[in-house]
Amino acid sequence: MFEPFWKEVGNSATVVIPGWQKMSYFSDPRNLCWFLEPEFANEALRLHRIVGNAVTDDRHIIVGVGSTQLIHAALFALASAEARQPVNVISAAPYYSMYSGISDFMKSGMFRWAGDAAAFNGDDNFIELVCSPNNPDGEIREAVRGNEAGKRVHDMAYYWPQYSPMRLPADHDIMLFTVSKATGHAGTRIGWALVKDAEIARKMGKFIEMNTIGVSKDSQVRAAKILKVIADGYELPGVEAGSKFFHFGRCLLANRWQRLRQAIEASGRFSLPQFPSEFCEFFKEHAETYPGFAWLRCEDQTIEDLEVFFKTINILTRSGRQFGVGPEYVRISMMDKDANFDVLIKRISFLE
Amino acid sequence: MFEPFWKEVGNSATVVIPGWQKMSYFSDPRNLCWFLEPEFANEALRLHRIVGNAVTDDRHIIVGVGSTQLIHAALFALASAEARQPVNVISAAPYYSMYSGISDFMKSGMFRWAGDAAAFNGDDNFIELVCSPNNPDGEIREAVRGNEAGKRVHDMAYYWPQYSPMRLPADHDIMLFTVSKATGHAGTRIGWALVKDAEIARKMGKFIEMNTIGVSKDSQVRAAKILKVIADGYELPGVEAGSKFFHFGRCLLANRWQRLRQAIEASGRFSLPQFPSEFCEFFKEHAETYPGFAWLRCEDQTIEDLEVFFKTINILTRSGRQFGVGPEYVRISMMDKDANFDVLIKRISFLE
Repeated sequence: MFEPFWKEVGNSATVVIPGWQKMSYFSDPRNLCWFLEPEFANEALRLHRIVGNAVTDDRHIIVGVGSTQLIHAALFALASAEARQPVNVISAAPYYSMYSGISDFMKSGMFRWAGDAAAFNGDDNFIELVCSPNNPDGEIREAVRGNEAGKRVHDMAYYWPQYSPMRLPADHDIMLFTVSKATGHAGTRIGWALVKDAEIARKMGKFIEMNTIGVSKDSQVRAAKILKVIADGYELPGVEAGSKFFHFGRCLLANRWQRLRQAIEASGRFSLPQFPSEFCEFFKEHAETYPGFAWLRCEDQTIEDLEVFFKTINILTRSGRQFGVGPEYVRISMMDKDANFDVLIKRISFLE
Repeated sequence: MFEPFWKEVGNSATVVIPGWQKMSYFSDPRNLCWFLEPEFANEALRLHRIVGNAVTDDRHIIVGVGSTQLIHAALFALASAEARQPVNVISAAPYYSMYSGISDFMKSGMFRWAGDAAAFNGDDNFIELVCSPNNPDGEIREAVRGNEAGKRVHDMAYYWPQYSPMRLPADHDIMLFTVSKATGHAGTRIGWALVKDAEIARKMGKFIEMNTIGVSKDSQVRAAKILKVIADGYELPGVEAGSKFFHFGRCLLANRWQRLRQAIEASGRFSLPQFPSEFCEFFKEHAETYPGFAWLRCEDQTIEDLEVFFKTINILTRSGRQFGVGPEYVRISMMDKDANFDVLIKRISFLE
């Protein structure tokens, strides 16, 4: 979706790595996260400061192969290898469809998926995954079981100005981010965690060491370059308006959401979540919410399974069942390429 | 260790990736391994054909974040999620020190570490990890329990001409390779598996999808470039002798092994494995074995723990205990940078 922006900025975002550079396993042997490239860490911290989406003081940065590996790492770090029972992993429905698979697919004795946090009635031995803004429905969330002794991981992949108004900088024990959603570079597979507690950070690093012996240096170097171009667009004097990534992204998403809402309204058969306009501390004005996914609810009683219905008109969606709710919901991506999004709108418009 | 070669070849090994390229999760949606970059797959297959170290016909290629992730993926694919008991993972001692940790650290209910393959007396429900040439001792290995119903993973990280004479191309069900050992680019974190069975390959891909949603495209593009430079050095007409990577690597390792053997012999207190000279199908001449690690045995009865002894003279080694044998052994890396290797030889020489 953001490809046109990166074509526009041209060479400044190009990464060049000679054959003899970045050959070692190690990036920074003195760092608790010894495979973290300092230039990547610096650019990530710089962008957080510019955007104001997260508190970065006195945090450890752990880099991972996308935020997916960091979710595994956080569960590993928060669970106890000595516990006789695996710790329960919960998240409020609708929850990101991969949370259950990530928790269960290795049949780990350390943690197991226990479903919807709102329905959970186990003891205090749990880890709550809090996705905010939430995938799939775009809601800003707090932990459902916030005041209890359990542990929390805050998945902040979508807390960037193109998707959501920026409120106060988030300040949680473990916060996960990823260039995939921040800049559009999913193929680079770089995520990072801001972690308050040194021992938890060390265990997350240990997971990544045992899982993949660190994280690609090439990708970290490229991610650093990409984040730098975005930061420069807001900090360097005299840059053109076209170099302001979050402005570009918000404009693009605003346009898409407007077109989708029109098409959905015209069809008269579905509804979309509504979000209040809020003051954005980044844009310094009232701003709308434009989630990376549209969470569609079926209002037509003749349709039993919304995913199946959309399949018949060649629209690929993901059923609400995968997110812990019913087949009257589907998730539609708002982040596809322009041409694919145009086709989506055209097909929905035919439903009138 | 191979850095001087990559400095020498210069720009031809430089990778350049514009900001708008390789942004997607997907590389090749029609491939069973949908995150595999075709250019990387092509160069890996090309190099195997030139070197003759592995049969590549009718194999699926699965790319991973180093061969470490592929070991996890292979265990996951060979184990059964439905089994009531975890499958036993074994390897003949001395075995690569990470095999036990990889098998056990997630406390998976699918597989568990069961130690030395030669001492294993469980039933046919096992997976044998066969490292050949073996880390730590450089031996060429066959499966210890080769004729039984168990399953095997062949870790071939060191089966390249700089380390070992090339015999017939290896032909096993699952063979693992990594650019880390093939070319020296550990920081790129790219490994690959050649897999005979489509269903096993699909499950390995599934593991990588759940673990990290694929593998860095940037690293795959860089690895493709690196492998291409090596292949070009042997296939393009009129290339200089200095562009032949395996010749460079063998020469470097031969020199290091000669210096190490001299220093060890002069000390009179340790012994090293001996390897017969064999005909190398790649170099087309008799060739010696130059493992990436030296496996040192203590012959001095006054030394109880060889790792501790070397620590007192500032030489970092890894104790035999980590490889499933006794403290009379240590593993020393032969792949460090030139300056560090020089210091190693100097310190051993002081022992005379």
